[in-house]
Amino acid sequence: MTCEEEKLIEGSNFERIFYPRRIAIIGVSPKGFGFGSGMLLSLLAVGYEGNIYPVNPKGGEFAGLKIYKSVDEIPGQIDFAIIAVPAHLVPGALEACRKKGAAGAEILSAGFKETGSPEGIALEEEIKKIAKRGIKVIGPNCFGIYCPKSGLTLLPGPDLSRESGPVAFLAQSGGMSIDFAYIGKWMGIRFNKMVSFGNGADLREAELLEYLGRDPETRVISMYIEGVEDGKEFFRVLKDVAAKKPVIVYKGGLSDAGRRAVASHTASLGGDKIIWESLLRQCNAIQVKDLLEMAQTSLAFSLLPQRVYKGISVTGGGGALGVSACDAAEAFGLVLPPLEKKISDKIMEVLPKPGSSATNPIDAANPHAPPHVLKEALLNAGGDKNIDLQILIQLLHHYKFLAMGMGVAVKEVTPYNELADAAKEVVDTTGKPVVLVLPNYKQEMEYMDIEELIREARRVFLAKGIPVFDDLKDALRAIAHVSNYYARNKVEEG
Amino acid sequence: MTCEEEKLIEGSNFERIFYPRRIAIIGVSPKGFGFGSGMLLSLLAVGYEGNIYPVNPKGGEFAGLKIYKSVDEIPGQIDFAIIAVPAHLVPGALEACRKKGAAGAEILSAGFKETGSPEGIALEEEIKKIAKRGIKVIGPNCFGIYCPKSGLTLLPGPDLSRESGPVAFLAQSGGMSIDFAYIGKWMGIRFNKMVSFGNGADLREAELLEYLGRDPETRVISMYIEGVEDGKEFFRVLKDVAAKKPVIVYKGGLSDAGRRAVASHTASLGGDKIIWESLLRQCNAIQVKDLLEMAQTSLAFSLLPQRVYKGISVTGGGGALGVSACDAAEAFGLVLPPLEKKISDKIMEVLPKPGSSATNPIDAANPHAPPHVLKEALLNAGGDKNIDLQILIQLLHHYKFLAMGMGVAVKEVTPYNELADAAKEVVDTTGKPVVLVLPNYKQEMEYMDIEELIREARRVFLAKGIPVFDDLKDALRAIAHVSNYYARNKVEEG
Repeated sequence: MTCEEEKLIEGSNFERIFYPRRIAIIGVSPKGFGFGSGMLLSLLAVGYEGNIYPVNPKGGEFAGLKIYKSVDEIPGQIDFAIIAVPAHLVPGALEACRKKGAAGAEILSAGFKETGSPEGIALEEEIKKIAKRGIKVIGPNCFGIYCPKSGLTLLPGPDLSRESGPVAFLAQSGGMSIDFAYIGKWMGIRFNKMVSFGNGADLREAELLEYLGRDPETRVISMYIEGVEDGKEFFRVLKDVAAKKPVIVYKGGLSDAGRRAVASHTASLGGDKIIWESLLRQCNAIQVKDLLEMAQTSLAFSLLPQRVYKGISVTGGGGALGVSACDAAEAFGLVLPPLEKKISDKIMEVLPKPGSSATNPIDAANPHAPPHVLKEALLNAGGDKNIDLQILIQLLHHYKFLAMGMGVAVKEVTPYNELADAAKEVVDTTGKPVVLVLPNYKQEMEYMDIEELIREARRVFLAKGIPVFDDLKDALRAIAHVSNYYARNKVEEG
Repeated sequence: MTCEEEKLIEGSNFERIFYPRRIAIIGVSPKGFGFGSGMLLSLLAVGYEGNIYPVNPKGGEFAGLKIYKSVDEIPGQIDFAIIAVPAHLVPGALEACRKKGAAGAEILSAGFKETGSPEGIALEEEIKKIAKRGIKVIGPNCFGIYCPKSGLTLLPGPDLSRESGPVAFLAQSGGMSIDFAYIGKWMGIRFNKMVSFGNGADLREAELLEYLGRDPETRVISMYIEGVEDGKEFFRVLKDVAAKKPVIVYKGGLSDAGRRAVASHTASLGGDKIIWESLLRQCNAIQVKDLLEMAQTSLAFSLLPQRVYKGISVTGGGGALGVSACDAAEAFGLVLPPLEKKISDKIMEVLPKPGSSATNPIDAANPHAPPHVLKEALLNAGGDKNIDLQILIQLLHHYKFLAMGMGVAVKEVTPYNELADAAKEVVDTTGKPVVLVLPNYKQEMEYMDIEELIREARRVFLAKGIPVFDDLKDALRAIAHVSNYYARNKVEEG
């Protein structure tokens, strides 16, 4: 077999894993207990469209599906298997799935290497041996694969989004995977694939990353790593992939206590902080320090054009917020250049006079500055050659008093739809992205309507491709990550 | 007059400013337009209990109160005045209030030094002269004083909390003041005084800070500074006050663009970053970098015992969150020491077995670990001599599936009351604080109930004196600020 032929088969195997038409779930209790039944219900809840074949030696029925007594009994071939039986039964189940023609299997069961016990370690070795005979294994001790387009979902994920998008995510940690999937859902990050690979007995960071590097669906890769098996191989692949696509890496366990926590979580070797950080830099990976930063950075890479951003304009939010914006921008290596005099003068023509200013930050000195005024300000500022990206800050809670005075709901008086239209027009006209920041300073129980308003506004802006952040600093940091990546890595604009 | 006598009079003047029984509001339109009418309505809305005397040359009536045609017409003396007339009328109004015996006045009107115009500058000089004749002035160009106990509120603050507490806040920026007042309301920060002093023609950072240093109601001071008038005097006072009470300083405008923004916002001189940071360190002030950090730090100083915290335990939240906790703690100079073997063993006796660990972080490997289990874990870990403070992380959205399975509201199945009782018992038994972290990873529109649940849980924990943060890093950073302050500044435990 030539190398090309091998790659073709390999590719079709991955295709069958992420887009399986026939799935066996080994370990479905007719009473609905356990991971197998939970996963089956989750697949039904998200609306997986293929065939599901539950397996349990006792037979019976669950959720309207016949339970097969063994994998062999399933009619025809299977593409993918989900294994959720006690650890000692896993090798047998895996081997049966391999014989049944499955391209891959995810093993949700725990009780392997992570226990540190001789039995657990031996069972994991058995899995590795079976995998080498020709079945790709995700896990054990994992939450599995999430693939919105095909309808695969993580272990406790009956309500993950079915919208597919440019981001792929890899993690040992199932908890991190599900948290990221949920955060992504409302933050506007659309995944095409997520793999929680747990102990990583077979498929792990390097092989999966290499695959995502070739995967045409994937434009942005995020990873949470506790430890890698083969550091040299991993960094070789990382360097290669990061030269083509942004790879956002959250490396957990770089502190002393973190290494200890990693050991008891996924039994990986943590690694030294300085070495990791320097290698990540050398590979031009984007290092982030926590889940939220990873999410915000993934969002920015998803929605911002692939460019270097240096000069930022900041509009709205009042005097002190403008001052904060400047300080924060500088901390992330961005600048708020003063606008050209003639542009600044033009903006001052539309801004309500007392207290407003337009030197950048642009302070409308009015929390209710109407969309057409803000649009004019942004259109003008966007015409400045030193401005690469514009940030608009809106404190929507200020509309509450207006609404109360008029005796209507805050949603009625808040022009978020018009603001989104205005922002989109600015993006289209100037060719420079607009980023929205919507802080929520009123989180008392009595102001749930403000929270609802912000969520609705977020949805409307995201639908127009405009990223939304809660906090100005988070926005600036994410923008800086995008900018720094493209500054170091001159990639064709996509 | 002796120095003691002067201080007594000075003290009684401040008393009359923060706790006025008779307030004149100069510039109340009978039609309800403008700052004066807005402020009057705000005072009525928060329930100010003293007498209010609106003034407008046209007379009339507003909100059920007689409008006096001049300050002189008001029967008897006034304690405090709120001035909201056009700038050129302010000196006359202020002088009338002084003659009427007011100890102080806040000038909400803009149009002074901040305009940069010769007229504005001259008007501000006039105000200074009148102030020297014996009336303390807040402003101009400010949002005024917030004092929950007396019922004074900021300019657009009809719904600020009436609960008083240990924190005082000073700022030039009105926007920053109102934002902080609102954030404090739900975050659990209780203010006793807040002064937005705007241009600071008379009372400014140094004099106000000195007063707060002596003020027995104030245990924690926060400040937002854009620029100071007399740097030498300010740092002398700061050093003096910070030796007695924590002073949290958010200095805005330390970047190049920030200095420009400061100039157009409050017409102050910004100052050099390195000099500021080094002087703040020398004074043992606590430097924070944005509004949220200032708020979180104020909360921590309000609720945590005045001690050094080095060893932290982290419980709950799952494996990867534990790893993050370790990394973040180390970044802030805190540690998660391994628990003593015998303590760790005892905790493992109560934790659900598979996947759980108790080396610190303590991973219950179960998002629904019941309150009594978590209590046992915390009671034991709190007994470890290397643990000074405990963090409990709860991802409350996990209760949603449970609730859905049972067909009830998520609030019904989430044991936040029991958790709060358990945490309080741990604090009381171990003598070591517990801090709660409640991240919200499910912020879609369909999950408003999770947001509501978190807000309710926050309220219940705060009522027991337990600080609550959204994010682990924020919590650790705030704890580190407290710890570092007391490590540098050995103060008697209060």
